[in-house]
Amino acid sequence: PSEQEKHTVSDVWQTLPTRAESPANNPTTAEKVELGKQLFFDPRLSLTGTVSCNTCHNLMEGGDDGRPSSMGIHGRIGPRNAPTVWNSVFQTSQFWDGRAPDLEEQAKGPVIAGPEMGMPNHDKAIERVAAIPGYRSAFATVFGDDDSVTIDNAVKAIAAFERTLITPNSAYDRYVDGDRSALSASQVRGMQLFESAGCTECHSGPAFNGWTPGLTDASFEEFPRFSNRRFLDKYALAKDLGRYEVTKQPEDKHQFKVPVLRNITLTAPYFHNGAVESLAEAVRVMADVQLDMELAEREVTDIVNFMGALEGEFPNITLPRIPSRSGHSILEDQDPAATN
Amino acid sequence: PSEQEKHTVSDVWQTLPTRAESPANNPTTAEKVELGKQLFFDPRLSLTGTVSCNTCHNLMEGGDDGRPSSMGIHGRIGPRNAPTVWNSVFQTSQFWDGRAPDLEEQAKGPVIAGPEMGMPNHDKAIERVAAIPGYRSAFATVFGDDDSVTIDNAVKAIAAFERTLITPNSAYDRYVDGDRSALSASQVRGMQLFESAGCTECHSGPAFNGWTPGLTDASFEEFPRFSNRRFLDKYALAKDLGRYEVTKQPEDKHQFKVPVLRNITLTAPYFHNGAVESLAEAVRVMADVQLDMELAEREVTDIVNFMGALEGEFPNITLPRIPSRSGHSILEDQDPAATN
Ligand code: HEC
Ligand code: HEC
Ligand code: HEC
Ligand code: HEC
Ligand SMILES: [Ca+2]
Ligand SMILES: [Ca+2]
Ligand SMILES: [Ca+2]
Ligand SMILES: [Mg+2]
Repeated sequence: PSEQEKHTVSDVWQTLPTRAESPANNPTTAEKVELGKQLFFDPRLSLTGTVSCNTCHNLMEGGDDGRPSSMGIHGRIGPRNAPTVWNSVFQTSQFWDGRAPDLEEQAKGPVIAGPEMGMPNHDKAIERVAAIPGYRSAFATVFGDDDSVTIDNAVKAIAAFERTLITPNSAYDRYVDGDRSALSASQVRGMQLFESAGCTECHSGPAFNGWTPGLTDASFEEFPRFSNRRFLDKYALAKDLGRYEVTKQPEDKHQFKVPVLRNITLTAPYFHNGAVESLAEAVRVMADVQLDMELAEREVTDIVNFMGALEGEFPNITLPRIPSRSGHSILEDQDPAATN
Repeated sequence: PSEQEKHTVSDVWQTLPTRAESPANNPTTAEKVELGKQLFFDPRLSLTGTVSCNTCHNLMEGGDDGRPSSMGIHGRIGPRNAPTVWNSVFQTSQFWDGRAPDLEEQAKGPVIAGPEMGMPNHDKAIERVAAIPGYRSAFATVFGDDDSVTIDNAVKAIAAFERTLITPNSAYDRYVDGDRSALSASQVRGMQLFESAGCTECHSGPAFNGWTPGLTDASFEEFPRFSNRRFLDKYALAKDLGRYEVTKQPEDKHQFKVPVLRNITLTAPYFHNGAVESLAEAVRVMADVQLDMELAEREVTDIVNFMGALEGEFPNITLPRIPSRSGHSILEDQDPAATN
């Protein structure tokens, strides 16, 4: 019998749900998703009109921007790597340090973050949106026409759209569902090693981030767990204090959310600071700093191959038409070329 | 009889072709268009990985960026307003000053323009593309596998995609085709005035830019034609020397291509420097500096309303999946967050 046939798939391994629940205070509807999609792709939510959510979370690819850390308006560089928005719904908190409890709360951040979309405040952002007649009518349809163009409704729509960003039916899911030809022998070895080495201690559940359906409590892990190791200096992995920056509690120093590993082959570079350029090196680092072990190169390759099996099926997305302000500029206070 | 019924539609008025011819040396094929679409949307063609063709020519809206002048990598601001790519195929030259003879040649520019995508040279851009296996195979399918990842092939694919960016069947087209209910009375008055005032002297043909099917010779018009007028100072309209910057011939000073007016309601702000924020004001300026006449406000409104009828039907575009470099970063020499 082949490696694949001998392998008993235990309960550790779970397939990705094909849909996500919506919260009671923000039920998903088709119109809301469509509005959220428009907002997600609309660069006019940024001060300069050049940066949309999709700039840093490119849905044409891994839901990230491929950069070590993101670049927002005016070329400003932020401190952290952009995580994917694919399957971000399957998390109990958002951001590397979990500082937002849900997708709604999360989406308020980037719009007014200086190195991201750089709006001076939410009112200004909403003023811009409300100046576009097509948005006024879309908000009215979704949220009622009584002053419904608000930041709270905007982020509800964006979150409803994000709840559709799910990539099921990867080779791994098909394997777990019983198709033993879905993985190669190396991938199966990688899968077994991922469990036996202890990766699943943190990276468990359908999204490999510790979440299981129904779980709502946020949780964090120390990273790096083992210090004074060769990788820490090389990649400056101990510089960012993680959750401590949010809570200022000493015990939260170096605590980070366990990230989703779905589509991890598409989201190089790696870690909260994007300092590691290859997945193989990220796996070496993890084994070292989280498990205090060194993997053989063959083992690294098997795990990397296994991770390739976590690339899911991406839904077809039709490019939204974003509404216009007929015959009128929508950006104000921009440097006109005339004054250059 | 109503205004519409009385109006005889003369030969001046032409509908937009629903397809564009492809040149003999770059025949359009479905695979080539698909590859061109991927490249058009791919921010990895820019040095920082943040700016794609679509950043400045947003196909979700007017094919422009809504800015006075464009903002490229590192927030650098260029000197001119981004023209729409919708219907840009119906032009006999590209750029405000016509310095590119066709879409292929045009597309080579932005990739290495400092304030746009900022690649040091085409080789570097092509190296980036060739490092992505999915691109290597797509180029091989379209152009053969013998070293086919080249800048010449890349721009051929992009141009083939751009030749599909046509917006036919506007209210204006339906009116010209005989549907007399397609335009309002004000729009019909605007249409008549557009001819009688002399706008069609320059803005003729199906795209309102002087082009007619079969025409291949580039042509230019003086702008501003009448000087010492109140608008020149206000909007610095005489600062850019236009075609002179390309040819250095004195007679080319202030010569500009006549721009397409299709979807002009979606592409504020106006003129080569984007200094004019509203279409009504652009119409006032045109009458003044090109025709030495002043329009009544009611006439301006009628012309603006008529221009609203030039909004066409936008094709549904499926968001492309852009290929990845599995488990490896594709950007090099970026500031990592670790060194901030
Ligand atoms: C300029 C880049 C940039 C823009 C624009 C941007 N983001 Fe992000 N996003 C990031 C970065 C960087 C992080 C991680 C920040 C951190 O953890 O401190 C992040 C985190 C997130 C997360 C959390 C994912 C996780 O796994 O924790 C979500 C969801 C998200 N962004 C969605 C959005 C939405 C929605 C928008 C638009 C409203 C947006 N982003 C705009 C860069 C960006
Ligand atoms: C004790 C918990 C823990 C263990 C054990 C663990 N990880 Fe992680 N893993 C994390 C945390 C927390 C992060 C986020 C680190 C950061 O802040 O960048 C992470 C990040 C990663 C990343 C990078 C994700 C990204 O998007 O950049 C990969 C890949 C990864 N882990 C794989 C593994 C593998 C393979 C193993 C086993 C060899 C493993 N992990 C063991 C907690 C753990
Ligand atoms: C940072 C902004 C920016 C980027 C990126 C950009 N463009 Fe442009 N584009 C412009 C501006 C500004 C002009 C006008 C420049 C001029 O006339 O001197 C222009 C002109 C054009 C034109 C000529 C249209 C006309 O009516 O004359 C076409 C076609 C075009 N761009 C296509 C592209 C393609 C294809 C790409 C990607 C390979 C691209 N652009 C990238 C800003 C940009
Ligand atoms: C003698 C030629 C000529 C005449 C007559 C003329 N135009 Fe223009 N038009 C141009 C040129 C050239 C430009 C580009 C100017 C520039 O460089 O910004 C232009 C630009 C425009 C624009 C702005 C396009 C954009 O994308 O920013 C509008 C709107 C316009 N014309 C409408 C009109 C109207 C309405 C009339 C009649 C009242 C008219 N034009 C008469 C040649 C002409
Ligand atoms: Ca990453
Ligand atoms: Ca526009
Ligand atoms: Ca414009
Ligand atoms: Mg990526």
